Amino acid sequence: METMGRHVIAELWGCNDEKLNDMSYIEETFVGAALKAGAEVREVAFHKFAPQGVSGVVIISESHLTIHSFPEHGYASIDVYTCGDRIDPNVAANHIAKALEASSVENIEVPRGAGPVRIKETSVNALS
Amino acid sequence: METMGRHVIAELWGCNDEKLNDMSYIEETFVGAALKAGAEVREVAFHKFAPQGVSGVVIISESHLTIHSFPEHGYASIDVYTCGDRIDPNVAANHIAKALEASSVENIEVPRGAGPVRIKETSVNALS
Repeated sequence: METMGRHVIAELWGCNDEKLNDMSYIEETFVGAALKAGAEVREVAFHKFAPQGVSGVVIISESHLTIHSFPEHGYASIDVYTCGDRIDPNVAANHIAKALEASSVENIEVPRGAGPVRIKETSVNALS
Repeated sequence: METMGRHVIAELWGCNDEKLNDMSYIEETFVGAALKAGAEVREVAFHKFAPQGVSGVVIISESHLTIHSFPEHGYASIDVYTCGDRIDPNVAANHIAKALEASSVENIEVPRGAGPVRIKETSVNALS
């Protein structure tokens, strides 16, 4: 397995607060995002916090997807990390942003396993 | 819960290849790292790949720790993400680097949930 990977860090603001608090919906969204990107799902672990918020991870053969949601702030913190160059992590990240109805998305991409870390690109998109 | 968090991305090279392939050891190390940093462990999910390599996550109340190991390259890709300012993610990241006997560690810290992403610091340490 090659060490080289792409790690997309996505900051989602202005999300639908009900969806951010719906663990089943988030879990389905994340598994769907992984499959849409062409990844192979290996482990799924989600946790619902009281009084609100969801954290979770999908481990894929190609690395992982994670979320931490803050319904009270309309904010979700997303990571999509894929090893190799077969899968585009942005496909999954964009699927998640749309499913959570984010009105503002900031993505940065961090190259992993390829020597010294250099931040590759930053994009900020107001979606509405 | 406040959205503000600290996300340490650590690239570990020159690790002990046997430890990188020992799922039980890695799981214990990660749970230990979380507890040492003062985090509360919520979910633990690890996966062993054939012929080698381990991926895993510890979901903590304060976010997550993840690893993807590549024993054949002596490389481990680590993330330690902690919300709030009570916990220092570097405590956990350093514990893990030591446990895996990394000879070279590069950490970058990404602030999360605090508006536009600005990379906070980069450190490269040759440990041996």
